This record gives sequence, C-alpha cells and structure tokens, in this order.
Amino acid sequence: MQQADVQWSDEEKQIAKAALRRAYEQEVEALIDSIRNNASKISRLEEVWQLHDFLSAKRHAIDGRYDERDDFLMFTLSSLIKDGLLTKADLTGLTAGTQAKINLLARM
Amino acid sequence: MQQADVQWSDEEKQIAKAALRRAYEQEVEALIDSIRNNASKISRLEEVWQLHDFLSAKRHAIDGRYDERDDFLMFTLSSLIKDGLLTKADLTGLTAGTQAKINLLARM
Repeated sequence: MQQADVQWSDEEKQIAKAALRRAYEQEVEALIDSIRNNASKISRLEEVWQLHDFLSAKRHAIDGRYDERDDFLMFTLSSLIKDGLLTKADLTGLTAGTQAKINLLARM
Repeated sequence: MQQADVQWSDEEKQIAKAALRRAYEQEVEALIDSIRNNASKISRLEEVWQLHDFLSAKRHAIDGRYDERDDFLMFTLSSLIKDGLLTKADLTGLTAGTQAKINLLARM
C-alpha cells in the first residue's frame, strides 16, 4: 500500500498529528513514572543494567515512533495502534477510508 | 613499564584484590544511590536520556575497570587511584617498590 493512496485534508492532518502528540505525551509520562518507580527499588548492579537495557530499547523505539511528516502519518498512526499507544477511537474525524487503511496496516 | 617488572607475593595479591573489590563495592553502591536520587527528580524526556547516557558511560567504565587477573593488577590498581576510586592508603601492605610503580602509573 502506498502512502499516495491516501489524500489527507488539512483538518485530517491536524487530527492525526494531535493523536500522535497525545500518544507521545502519554508514552513519555508512563516512561517517567516507570523509571521513578523502578529506580527506587534498585539494590543490585544487575538491576542497574536491566534499567540501562530498558532505556536503550525505549530510546530506540521512541526515536523512531513519532514521525509526523505528512508522508509517514499513516504508518506512524498504524504502528501506534499496533503497539497499543493509540486506539481506533483516536482516529475519529479521519475519513472512513483512511481509518480502514490505518487499521489494516496495524494488523500486519 | 612491563607487568613482568613486578613480582607479587600471594599476600600482595590478596591485598590488591581486596582493595579492588572494596573499590568495586563502593562504586556500585554510589552508582545505585545516585540513580535512586536522580531518578526520583526526573520530569522530562531529556532527563531520561541523560540518565541513559550516564548509565551507558558507567557500564562501559565498570566493565573495563575491575580486571583482577594477576597480569593486570598493577594497571587496575593504578587506574582506580587515577580515577579516585582508591587512595594511596589502600596500597598499604604492598612492597614499597610496587606502591611506587602503581603511583607512577596513576600519574600518567
């Protein structure tokens, strides 16, 4: 499926980017909560390196996850749904056709 | 300076390895305290990645710092002194010649 298949109106782009930023803020907030909770329980070096591994994976994921360039919006939204960071309800306001394509991509 | 220049008695090896392990335990304890204190104050993603960078550097340093193989003892001790993780007083019990060589290496 090519991105060119989907025509986004300006309003749809705004809706998509608002959903994307909401997911971003929620993921960051959850990450910070998780670090604060887990770090307070660390008592062994092994647990320090587990935290380091967790942060390495999170950094890689977050760096790649929130591409809001127009050409990538559909893929960004579908991967956020796939990863449980957005739900179908967050797509409300997009055309039925765009929603269907995003949901299809999210199941791949 | 070649490691072969220094002859370690069994007693000296024990003293050296005990100092090394003491430094290791102190560094690990200080690291855990630092994480617990700093993580509780994190409120922005930038600070999460600062913690990640800090852990990456610490992991690299700690992985390389505590080599207790006989052939590396002099270099391990001198780098611990150089990095402030041991003091000259921790070398008490080693021969004067060995202490002098370790201190010389630590200033390089």
